[in-house]
Amino acid sequence: MTKWVYSFGNGRAEGSAADRELLGGKGANLAEMCNLGLPVPPGFTLTTDVCTAFYDNQRQYPDDLKAQAEQAMAAMEKAIGTDFGDADKPLLVSVRSGSRASMPGMMDTVLNLGLNDETVRGLAAQGGNERFAWDSYRRFVQMYSDVVLGIDHYHFEDLLEMRKEQKGLQLDTELEADDLRQLVADYKAKVKAELGRPFPQDVKDQLWGAIEAVFGSWMNERAITYRRLHDIPEDWGTAVNVQAMVFGNMGEDSATGVAFTRDPSTGDRRFFGEYLINAQGEDVVAGIRTPQHLTTAAREAARDDKPSLQEVMPEVFAELEAIYRHLETHYRDMQDIEFTVQRGKLYMLQTRAGKRTTNAALKIAVDMAEEGVISKAEAVARIDPASLDQLLHPTLDPEAEKRIVVRGLPASPGAAFGKVSFSADEAETLAAQGEDVILVRIETSPEDIHGMHAARGILTSRGGMTSHAAVVARGMGRPCVSGAGQLRIDYKTQSMRVAGETIKAGQQITLDGSSGEVMLGRVATVQPELSGDFGVLMGWADKLRKLEVRTNAETPTEAEVALSFGAQGIGLCRTEHMFFDTDRILAVREMILADDESGRRAALRKILPMQRNDFTSLFEIMAGLPVTIRLLDPPLHEFLPHGEAELADLAKATGASAEHLRHRADQLHEFNPMLGHRGCRLGISYPEIYEMQARAIFEAAAGVNLNKGATVVPEVMLPLIASRAEFDALKRRIDTVAKQVAAEKGCEVDYLVGTMIELPRAALRAGEIAAGAEFFSFGTNDLTQTTYGISRDDSAGFLEEYQSKGIFEADPFSTLDIDGVGELVRIAAERGRRVRAELKLGICGEHGGDPASIAFCHDIGLDYVSCSPYRVPIARLAAAQAAIASG
Amino acid sequence: MTKWVYSFGNGRAEGSAADRELLGGKGANLAEMCNLGLPVPPGFTLTTDVCTAFYDNQRQYPDDLKAQAEQAMAAMEKAIGTDFGDADKPLLVSVRSGSRASMPGMMDTVLNLGLNDETVRGLAAQGGNERFAWDSYRRFVQMYSDVVLGIDHYHFEDLLEMRKEQKGLQLDTELEADDLRQLVADYKAKVKAELGRPFPQDVKDQLWGAIEAVFGSWMNERAITYRRLHDIPEDWGTAVNVQAMVFGNMGEDSATGVAFTRDPSTGDRRFFGEYLINAQGEDVVAGIRTPQHLTTAAREAARDDKPSLQEVMPEVFAELEAIYRHLETHYRDMQDIEFTVQRGKLYMLQTRAGKRTTNAALKIAVDMAEEGVISKAEAVARIDPASLDQLLHPTLDPEAEKRIVVRGLPASPGAAFGKVSFSADEAETLAAQGEDVILVRIETSPEDIHGMHAARGILTSRGGMTSHAAVVARGMGRPCVSGAGQLRIDYKTQSMRVAGETIKAGQQITLDGSSGEVMLGRVATVQPELSGDFGVLMGWADKLRKLEVRTNAETPTEAEVALSFGAQGIGLCRTEHMFFDTDRILAVREMILADDESGRRAALRKILPMQRNDFTSLFEIMAGLPVTIRLLDPPLHEFLPHGEAELADLAKATGASAEHLRHRADQLHEFNPMLGHRGCRLGISYPEIYEMQARAIFEAAAGVNLNKGATVVPEVMLPLIASRAEFDALKRRIDTVAKQVAAEKGCEVDYLVGTMIELPRAALRAGEIAAGAEFFSFGTNDLTQTTYGISRDDSAGFLEEYQSKGIFEADPFSTLDIDGVGELVRIAAERGRRVRAELKLGICGEHGGDPASIAFCHDIGLDYVSCSPYRVPIARLAAAQAAIASG
Repeated sequence: MTKWVYSFGNGRAEGSAADRELLGGKGANLAEMCNLGLPVPPGFTLTTDVCTAFYDNQRQYPDDLKAQAEQAMAAMEKAIGTDFGDADKPLLVSVRSGSRASMPGMMDTVLNLGLNDETVRGLAAQGGNERFAWDSYRRFVQMYSDVVLGIDHYHFEDLLEMRKEQKGLQLDTELEADDLRQLVADYKAKVKAELGRPFPQDVKDQLWGAIEAVFGSWMNERAITYRRLHDIPEDWGTAVNVQAMVFGNMGEDSATGVAFTRDPSTGDRRFFGEYLINAQGEDVVAGIRTPQHLTTAAREAARDDKPSLQEVMPEVFAELEAIYRHLETHYRDMQDIEFTVQRGKLYMLQTRAGKRTTNAALKIAVDMAEEGVISKAEAVARIDPASLDQLLHPTLDPEAEKRIVVRGLPASPGAAFGKVSFSADEAETLAAQGEDVILVRIETSPEDIHGMHAARGILTSRGGMTSHAAVVARGMGRPCVSGAGQLRIDYKTQSMRVAGETIKAGQQITLDGSSGEVMLGRVATVQPELSGDFGVLMGWADKLRKLEVRTNAETPTEAEVALSFGAQGIGLCRTEHMFFDTDRILAVREMILADDESGRRAALRKILPMQRNDFTSLFEIMAGLPVTIRLLDPPLHEFLPHGEAELADLAKATGASAEHLRHRADQLHEFNPMLGHRGCRLGISYPEIYEMQARAIFEAAAGVNLNKGATVVPEVMLPLIASRAEFDALKRRIDTVAKQVAAEKGCEVDYLVGTMIELPRAALRAGEIAAGAEFFSFGTNDLTQTTYGISRDDSAGFLEEYQSKGIFEADPFSTLDIDGVGELVRIAAERGRRVRAELKLGICGEHGGDPASIAFCHDIGLDYVSCSPYRVPIARLAAAQAAIASG
Repeated sequence: MTKWVYSFGNGRAEGSAADRELLGGKGANLAEMCNLGLPVPPGFTLTTDVCTAFYDNQRQYPDDLKAQAEQAMAAMEKAIGTDFGDADKPLLVSVRSGSRASMPGMMDTVLNLGLNDETVRGLAAQGGNERFAWDSYRRFVQMYSDVVLGIDHYHFEDLLEMRKEQKGLQLDTELEADDLRQLVADYKAKVKAELGRPFPQDVKDQLWGAIEAVFGSWMNERAITYRRLHDIPEDWGTAVNVQAMVFGNMGEDSATGVAFTRDPSTGDRRFFGEYLINAQGEDVVAGIRTPQHLTTAAREAARDDKPSLQEVMPEVFAELEAIYRHLETHYRDMQDIEFTVQRGKLYMLQTRAGKRTTNAALKIAVDMAEEGVISKAEAVARIDPASLDQLLHPTLDPEAEKRIVVRGLPASPGAAFGKVSFSADEAETLAAQGEDVILVRIETSPEDIHGMHAARGILTSRGGMTSHAAVVARGMGRPCVSGAGQLRIDYKTQSMRVAGETIKAGQQITLDGSSGEVMLGRVATVQPELSGDFGVLMGWADKLRKLEVRTNAETPTEAEVALSFGAQGIGLCRTEHMFFDTDRILAVREMILADDESGRRAALRKILPMQRNDFTSLFEIMAGLPVTIRLLDPPLHEFLPHGEAELADLAKATGASAEHLRHRADQLHEFNPMLGHRGCRLGISYPEIYEMQARAIFEAAAGVNLNKGATVVPEVMLPLIASRAEFDALKRRIDTVAKQVAAEKGCEVDYLVGTMIELPRAALRAGEIAAGAEFFSFGTNDLTQTTYGISRDDSAGFLEEYQSKGIFEADPFSTLDIDGVGELVRIAAERGRRVRAELKLGICGEHGGDPASIAFCHDIGLDYVSCSPYRVPIARLAAAQAAIASG
């Protein structure tokens, strides 16, 4: 027989904290506190299995559930010494949902359940307080009607307001028992009018109604959305907790409060919390009365003159203090607790791990490890890597008001404000004049990079989490909101429209790249500050992790930022990003427009010294750390200007006819550039381009080695390899250039030649390719595109729909699809290492900065992950956690 | 010790026909003829291993080669009874290359080797004919200088002409012995002037020079190109044959000739050939003298008065007749033989399988099988499936003159001529007026289909072998040349330019879609005719094959053509092709432009009856054979017009504002439509589209079943599935529609729901997908695109380069890449069948009509291949050959 119901109370419980999956978080912790001997009002938990069975069986309960629940109710009645529904001495209960993870989307709580026209009198008699009884009944009818019967609470609030008006009163507390009795009657009449049937008077009906409401709320839209957003599986289900009520509003000897065992904002080790005399829990939260400090120290620090609990109820406080210490030691983590004092007696209603800011989380983890409560590995495991983002970027001031006009994708974290500019050139000009600028584009292209750099933040109406704008912004550490599809940007009128609002160039807007929100006007931001605890914890993480962490960086600034964040090399230097500087794009275009190889070579000779300088500075900054340089990847047409005006400019600058330029641009046009003439295919067609780049690399390396006595070992990476023949043909040329440069400079440079694995075919043929390649770097952006047949630039719209419909659990461009793309990565790693045991393996797609994907990289034995500079700390931590998790 | 040299002669040989790989075709057949006791001049063969060793070892011969060759030469001298280089009675030899496959790119032959200033006199004395000796020497010096020493033959021809002029002569034959002696002196002087060293007099130097020239020619550019074009591996190498010379030009009792054992044009069973009295082999080919018929019957049939060999040399002819019968019986195939008669004695110089037309091949194969010479399986195995193309399409008249102006890809076979038209509408209009039209477009889109249908042939300047133009043209059986990149088409001026030539609309051009050639003006074509032998052989093939052959067809015409060619069902009906008809495109566009689902549903209701009619006619034509219908696949923007003018038209027709249309088109724009919002993704976003299509299918099937008593079992195919969740979500909707229709019509239709496997992820997750899918159809076009990351629309240019550089052996869009794409197909088949043993597996990409790919499909156990109608016979034959090959 399945056990569907677990009882707790009187220092004993049928479950424990270990039963979180079965009893939900709340139920498991109530059981645990009982087992610890703490004062917990008795009750019972309907397990998550009930929920699952309920949905598996067309919303029918298991046959034996009711019998088990009645038995548990009887046990609770016995523990309390009175009966549920007893007219004289009624047992009242709360009914609460409790899933494994906290889930705000669900039905939360019904209090005072068990009150009806009879029992309300018993409650009044028992407590000797008529007003308290009728107020409890009134609250219960409203709450139950709202969350169980589905009658909007404003109906009841209207009635309440009418009554106060009638009586000329201001505060609810001024209402007397009779007023409340009358209100209950009004409420019940309202329910009958709305529902066509009376408010349930049978306490068992009330109970099962509430239970069904909890289970029903598991499938409401908000809950489904919340689960999707937080990756909570549907089949986890929720538990229901039924617990005897205790009252903090039974008079001056009663109270209710919430507390944290440490300061949740700073992590400081001090007991921290608030309470109210003669109040129910909701009053503390509602903010009508200002809660008081728990401790005298806190009261004094805040120069507050209202007494602390420590002062008002010293014995209760002492008991609470002992309990909180016990709980923190027992759970080995900072706890968030709720308690009620009923007529001088303390009851514990909840304990759970307390939410905290990232800074507090760091401090608590480091402190607890230093206190010996937890190990360093546990400390490292407790920090959510993604949360580090808020330490590294400015955030919106949580106090500031904000008017959101549109939402896009949270493409690059951090908050920024500035004047709207629709062109990269203008953004640069304005920034040079000291203005804060937000660059707004339909989408960005490599030509916009200078403007992106000059801007405080970037907003696009198209493109996903790995669009050009997103990738480049993350690399630069610029906040970015991408794919705000409702925005209609019109370059001609220099304005954008959204939801009837027109925003013109020069107007102030604010972006939050962590949430995807775009606000009108300037919203205050808060600058981040890195604490010492961050450094301590990252140091521990570094000792634990097996994966190296490199960065994707092209510019000296990026390389320096990444280095300061602990990058152990450059895993991806995209050389084409170096082609867009104003002083070289012309030479690049000359190269593209040249009629033959000798014309291309002439143009490439102009580019060579600039590329060499690029590599020289990167090699100098990285000072012997590995630097992986990817040879030219994008199709050539990306470097040509679009639009007639720009073509005319180029014609003037190069002396070529506009017609010739148009023809060339037309020749280069591609329907699907992602699958076009790019990557190593360019190297095969125009060997002189890769030869120039290889020469620049080897000359720079030789120079740095000669001048600085360094030992730079460049890693030359070929993009978009699909077959061994491509790799071999290109490697031969690179080796030839290396020999030439060695002879010319009198200095042999050690180097590796390897490849991106970014095509399914390359993954499958990895064994062959590894016969020539000395390293593989998984380009999981492109590999995801080809494995799924989904373009990142075009997918923002339907991927969101796919997630909302539950077809995809996550955006495969953010979190690696382990089942599909992951299998190819695993196949390539295995086949590659089988042929070349020492093959270096890394990942340089956006997934290199995603914790779940990093765990996968660890599991399959990659050597390193490479991510944008601002994600390096995240990757270091995630790598450590992966190592811890795999034991 | 490796045996490098194999001797033959005097009725014995060290090798045989089985040694083709080692001795090359010519050498193996010479050995075989010796073994058969036929009169073959003695000689020896240097094996292909020598060639391989030569190249493996920096063009050095194996150490023991020369000793073995000398031994073989000694054996030959003994057989002939005279010595190589003997001044009085010189042995002369021919040196010929001989690889496994015939290779026109290589050095072919040096005759009369062994002549020098000494031996020429011996030859003269021996033969009693001074003129013959000096003419032989002259020919030898010219031939050797040309092919071995690299001195262009025009130098020698000039000297010859000068000499004739000096003497006032017209014909070479009028030159006398003294003239020829002087010419040899002139020739040798020329060699010395060009080379700086004299013409080699040492006969051994001559011999090794010629041998080295043969081996060297294995790596010359023409040979490399030829191997690439014919898929001949480099490591096969070539053999060298050294053979004693015999002379057909020793007088009126000497002759030389070539013959086929059956008629190579018709396949008729009659001895067929030509000869010349007193001539060398080259004279027969050169065409200066008209060769005579071998048989009297042929002579009489041709009303030729020059006597046949049968009449002139009846004994020799009788011997030859016996030999040809012997050879055909022995080789069990039609032979192409060369012979020489030296002073009344017959010598056999060559035998090999004779080249023949496809019609002849069919007749010979069928005849030989019926004669009992070969089995039916052998007959089937002997026909090149690709050669059937020329039986199914008009071809260029081989006699016609042609002026090629540009070459593109041979995208759809057959030849056609007509007036150039640059627009589909105009092409349709002209065709309706009875004009032959060639539709010329930069690329085609679904909007051009009516024009493609009206045209005789299609020419595009962009797009590969699987571009829209190519695929649709093949489906329609229209000749097509695609991707003629040098063509500059200008719609504005209604003209195209290529190589300085301008061709205007209305001018006549001719296409050869089998070769990719485009010619100016009208070149005569020849209509195909299917012989009875074709039907007989295809019948045998059908009994042998395991694979079913279906067709890709959308229109009734295509379905009927395919059925007449033996298709066993439709493997791919692309429903979107049905959306472009003038009467429905407007409704489709309304659907796309609708603001919400109800607007889309209203437009879809207009399309429903038309789609239902489409399916009804296909079901009726296929009469119970399986019909696989793919639901809408291309992105919606493909259905919107491009260009402002067309948008304005649409605005007028739909009543929508042009601005709204532009905005919608803009919204739908994709950077990489191939990887965009298409396939099942449309079905997820707009379920109403697939619901309409499913309804049209089930209503049509129910109607045909009810009205005709047929049992149509439609196979509903979901495109671009990447995950099981997509499949399940869509299948649920299809099942619901099926139930609705069944209830409405009172007729349950059996049906299958399956999926294309065209994404690497789908192949990898095939196990999961097969849990829901009842069939897989491998969409190898798209699977190749994603596995390689290559767009078929953009790859024509660089794929050609890849092949010419040897990076890819074949175009992966024409022949399935078995190593990469094939592994995914194999994985999917295995994983799918593991979960669902009865899973139906087929292929519907372009590879379904490619013989090599069909063999792969057979090997991995697919159930069927599906190809365009005109490829159905090819596929039937290829499937049979695959079955034969796998035993």
